Amino acid sequence: MQTELSKQLGVEHAVFGFTPFPAVAAAISRAGGFGVLGAVRYTAPDDLRRDLDWIEAHVGGRPYGLDVVMPAKKVEGVTEADVEALIPEGHRRFVADTLAKYGVPELAAGEASGWRITGWMEQVARTQLDVAFDYPIRLLANALGSPPADVVARAHDRGVLVAALAGSARHARKHRDAGIDIVVAQGYEAGGHTGEIASMVLTPDVVDAVDPLPVLAAGGIGSGQQVAAALSLGAQGVWLGSIWLTTTEAELQSPALTRKLLAAGSGDTVRSRALTGKPARQLRTEWTDAWDGPDGPGTLPMPLQGLLVAEAVSRIQKHEVGPLLGTPVGQIVGRMTDRRDVRAVFDDLTRGFERAVDRINRIAGRSGQS
Amino acid sequence: MQTELSKQLGVEHAVFGFTPFPAVAAAISRAGGFGVLGAVRYTAPDDLRRDLDWIEAHVGGRPYGLDVVMPAKKVEGVTEADVEALIPEGHRRFVADTLAKYGVPELAAGEASGWRITGWMEQVARTQLDVAFDYPIRLLANALGSPPADVVARAHDRGVLVAALAGSARHARKHRDAGIDIVVAQGYEAGGHTGEIASMVLTPDVVDAVDPLPVLAAGGIGSGQQVAAALSLGAQGVWLGSIWLTTTEAELQSPALTRKLLAAGSGDTVRSRALTGKPARQLRTEWTDAWDGPDGPGTLPMPLQGLLVAEAVSRIQKHEVGPLLGTPVGQIVGRMTDRRDVRAVFDDLTRGFERAVDRINRIAGRSGQS
Repeated sequence: MQTELSKQLGVEHAVFGFTPFPAVAAAISRAGGFGVLGAVRYTAPDDLRRDLDWIEAHVGGRPYGLDVVMPAKKVEGVTEADVEALIPEGHRRFVADTLAKYGVPELAAGEASGWRITGWMEQVARTQLDVAFDYPIRLLANALGSPPADVVARAHDRGVLVAALAGSARHARKHRDAGIDIVVAQGYEAGGHTGEIASMVLTPDVVDAVDPLPVLAAGGIGSGQQVAAALSLGAQGVWLGSIWLTTTEAELQSPALTRKLLAAGSGDTVRSRALTGKPARQLRTEWTDAWDGPDGPGTLPMPLQGLLVAEAVSRIQKHEVGPLLGTPVGQIVGRMTDRRDVRAVFDDLTRGFERAVDRINRIAGRSGQS
Repeated sequence: MQTELSKQLGVEHAVFGFTPFPAVAAAISRAGGFGVLGAVRYTAPDDLRRDLDWIEAHVGGRPYGLDVVMPAKKVEGVTEADVEALIPEGHRRFVADTLAKYGVPELAAGEASGWRITGWMEQVARTQLDVAFDYPIRLLANALGSPPADVVARAHDRGVLVAALAGSARHARKHRDAGIDIVVAQGYEAGGHTGEIASMVLTPDVVDAVDPLPVLAAGGIGSGQQVAAALSLGAQGVWLGSIWLTTTEAELQSPALTRKLLAAGSGDTVRSRALTGKPARQLRTEWTDAWDGPDGPGTLPMPLQGLLVAEAVSRIQKHEVGPLLGTPVGQIVGRMTDRRDVRAVFDDLTRGFERAVDRINRIAGRSGQS
């Protein structure tokens, strides 16, 4: 699976793997793909440094990248406490009542709630970048809008390609105008923040919109057939996130969550604002149903919603409260049915891709050409 | 584009085209595809007979099929008046108020409202079948669930293949168990009734679920690249509906609607219950916004909603009331940017398919094989 972009980055397969886990990122790059470490959870620079050191030691000299979350809108001089103060009391009560209804225990004293708003704030992302630029990262991706011009310039000065996610051709053109090098077309079926246009339509839309910039297709891709489909649509590679969540290298805190992911079908996700305030695809749970149902208080805008539910999500995960236990994941979750290592996933992707190419050649009447 | 299924049906390209217009259906078959005439609007058997006669005279001996709507649930001995009586007064008032707000004129005396519930009732569909079986149709498709066992048997006795639409692997398995020959996997991005699973995920799901039955991919397909993608996903063909709406052979009543379709982008559709009571993708308009917004009365279940809005939809279309003017159409509407005849669409599909196959071979390192 070689495209101009994979050649430029010096990787064997045009498969980009986004993951919050250093061991998965390194394994993806070692397997011939391009591992991208999600940085949002690193609120302490030293933690990020420790994990990038680990990747350096385990990636075997292969290229890799980093994904940060820099909101398009700047929030200057605002503290977490300032934002906390904007959350209505009724919403706090809804969270408390829902947790009580399911008997979700408190966190132990001193246990930090995992995900915090701070990871979403620009100053934190900038601290992450200060760390990251000490390492030979080859790609910097941003999940929310185009990164600021000075960040793009700083990346380009270091020969780092900049990628940004887009859910529509309009977003993609904005990225191009901001000097982005690679657009990730994030289809409706993708896990995490996503728009309403499905990959089958979005990928060629974005390819046409930013031509000749390279486009990575994201959303609904977890098999070699789907890789072949995405590349048929004009993408220069694929961007996979969900599929790695159930690999043996992934460090999900909760075995129950892994089991839930392995059991879920394609129809068991929902695009909900319950997690962050923006529509994000995730496992459908009684937690998302509570927020999205008629008795919910309505979700708050980003970043309030994320701040409101952060501790609740930590408690649910920590105590593995089955009906409420969820995670961002795409519709491809239906194909995640057994635990395999990253290498086995890659073997499956490349073999499936070759089979799909054989098949399409037969259909095109080029059967002698395999 | 030859698959087992296209060979079995004796067509050059594994492209199935669904359309309510006889001229489009005949042109699709003449161009080397397989035209499927939508029968739902034929409440009078003689009208259907007239149009099938026309197709016979213009299809040049090529194979074609018919699509009927037989709801899975039987509604025995219920008249349109019985159903009318179930519609709440508040809903009627909302329709009247919305039409008044936009100044939508009445229909002229004697002008029939177009689409009526009767086309959705099993006895009407059976009358359509009585007519259709007098013609050499090769395929009978059903849009809502599996057709009844006696209808499947009757089709099979005549050597007619039976197809049914499915929005999930579970639906697809039901069809297989009902003796259906072909499953149309209708993705989220498709026009008309559709589920929530996008084609990239749904197509291989359904292929695996009913193997070795042939699957047609529907939803998001309007270019040769998208055909290549769908076939990469394991489909034995593609099922296209929206793309024909703006062809020169299509007989849309309203020029304004054609212009609206040509101008719409991929993001200008919505999956709404406003038209029939079940989620159906259509142009997003101020009409769908009114129904789906916080001030709407909520939609009624099928078939009540369709009956409630039938005359309103006719009035909006007849009088071309721009902000309210809509039609079922998929996200592919963004690629429908100029009026072409069916043959030109086909040429574009086949050329785009060949280019996509060339490209995927280059990516697979088989560039010498084109």
